Amino acid sequence: MSRANPKTSLRRVIRSRPGEAVADDDHVTVEEPLEIRVDGTSVAVVMRTPGDDLDLARGFLLTEGIVQQHSDIFEISQCPSQEGETGPGNVIDVLLTNPDAVDLSSLSRQVYTSSSCGICGRATLESVFQQFPPIESDFSIPGHVLYTLPQRLSEVQETFEKTGGLHASALFDGEGQLIIAREDVGRHNALDKVIGHEWQSAHLPLSQTMLLVSGRVSFELMQKALCAGIPMVVGVSAPSSLAIDCAESANQCLIGFLRGETMNIYTHSHRVLP
Amino acid sequence: MSRANPKTSLRRVIRSRPGEAVADDDHVTVEEPLEIRVDGTSVAVVMRTPGDDLDLARGFLLTEGIVQQHSDIFEISQCPSQEGETGPGNVIDVLLTNPDAVDLSSLSRQVYTSSSCGICGRATLESVFQQFPPIESDFSIPGHVLYTLPQRLSEVQETFEKTGGLHASALFDGEGQLIIAREDVGRHNALDKVIGHEWQSAHLPLSQTMLLVSGRVSFELMQKALCAGIPMVVGVSAPSSLAIDCAESANQCLIGFLRGETMNIYTHSHRVLP
Repeated sequence: MSRANPKTSLRRVIRSRPGEAVADDDHVTVEEPLEIRVDGTSVAVVMRTPGDDLDLARGFLLTEGIVQQHSDIFEISQCPSQEGETGPGNVIDVLLTNPDAVDLSSLSRQVYTSSSCGICGRATLESVFQQFPPIESDFSIPGHVLYTLPQRLSEVQETFEKTGGLHASALFDGEGQLIIAREDVGRHNALDKVIGHEWQSAHLPLSQTMLLVSGRVSFELMQKALCAGIPMVVGVSAPSSLAIDCAESANQCLIGFLRGETMNIYTHSHRVLP
Repeated sequence: MSRANPKTSLRRVIRSRPGEAVADDDHVTVEEPLEIRVDGTSVAVVMRTPGDDLDLARGFLLTEGIVQQHSDIFEISQCPSQEGETGPGNVIDVLLTNPDAVDLSSLSRQVYTSSSCGICGRATLESVFQQFPPIESDFSIPGHVLYTLPQRLSEVQETFEKTGGLHASALFDGEGQLIIAREDVGRHNALDKVIGHEWQSAHLPLSQTMLLVSGRVSFELMQKALCAGIPMVVGVSAPSSLAIDCAESANQCLIGFLRGETMNIYTHSHRVLP
């Protein structure tokens, strides 16, 4: 039986290369939320690529210390996909053999939102999507300026030079001038540090800036950028399907694979000037 | 005033190159937990690189929707470092102007552990470090076998080929035979899928295996590997300070920067045979 690979999805892209810009389809990694429920209680939402979801839930329950042995799990099942969802469903139901053995209430320690890892700790699917209005900004930047930015970023990434182990987030203006850059072992932390600094400096919304991140672009980074009003997000690596979809509806230009004088423009290409 | 860069730290390393293995010091990225408290209630622990911690907390509170404007925060301060900690303290105290405006209890939605992003959603510093005994295993593997593994992994990474957007976790035996590989947009998910599958197959503890991950090695990956009894973790990129420290005490061999015929062995090098 042949079936589509649920781990990838097609999105429209403009492949910009020296002297040409070609519209094409691109395979991107699927990113979707998976809610894990234990005895009817939603305990976590993880942003994941669909596939092997029962294994994911089992591994999560074990490595996070919620269960210790097979016999602790009475039943584990995946709810069918709902309307509008593709592939397997996004909810895993777990029934414990002995519900009293795990004190869910004692484990609930006022963790009311996830973490700098973004939304993946939120407890229900509904809570994953924060409500922000689309960005209203006429921000744009010439393509040839974009090509200079990764080099600018690496010049200020002092710690990465030493360790190879840090993610960076940097904010630039429409002329390619660096506003602020931060590094952190967590990519979401680096962005939170940038946004926290700019917020404290009374610069929000950051409607005349673009964000450059050192790695991949996930949904959670797009949500944080949207919260701060940033109209353009550029990654040197791949975006996820959900990052692209959110950028599209939020009027944000999303660019991936910015390398040398090439890049992939996924959404709102009008913000890139020839 | 000159002071040490708190973002990096020195760890012992054996740099293995063709024909030689040299003991040296290596600069590694510092990874430490930061607890964010709001009106005395611990709301999250994020694993971060120290520095700009107030900005991190501000950005977190804003982008996670906990506060909306400057005036929502009455006071924000960093507790001094405690005995045994270096650098700034690992707790941020936030006082709200109007505590009634944020209903912490309603926001606490039974998220009792974080997420596949590891420990960063846990609510208190004490809860970050799970208690696992050190690994008892005589597992070892010849260095020349290790060098072949990244190529083996890329051969099975079908989706990465297409998208450039997935992390991989793969388990190998002591002769370099692939046991299982999984890909996911989240690196912790890929590992949870591997562990969940092996647990379901009654293969735990995985005391005669090694884990290869496609990217950097963080504390949370080491904790999951330890939970599953894996005695060796190899990354193609950099490990964090906390990953190294945990590997050391857990009797795990931790290797970073496995590329071509070179690698950095950070802990328990006796598991690598000449």
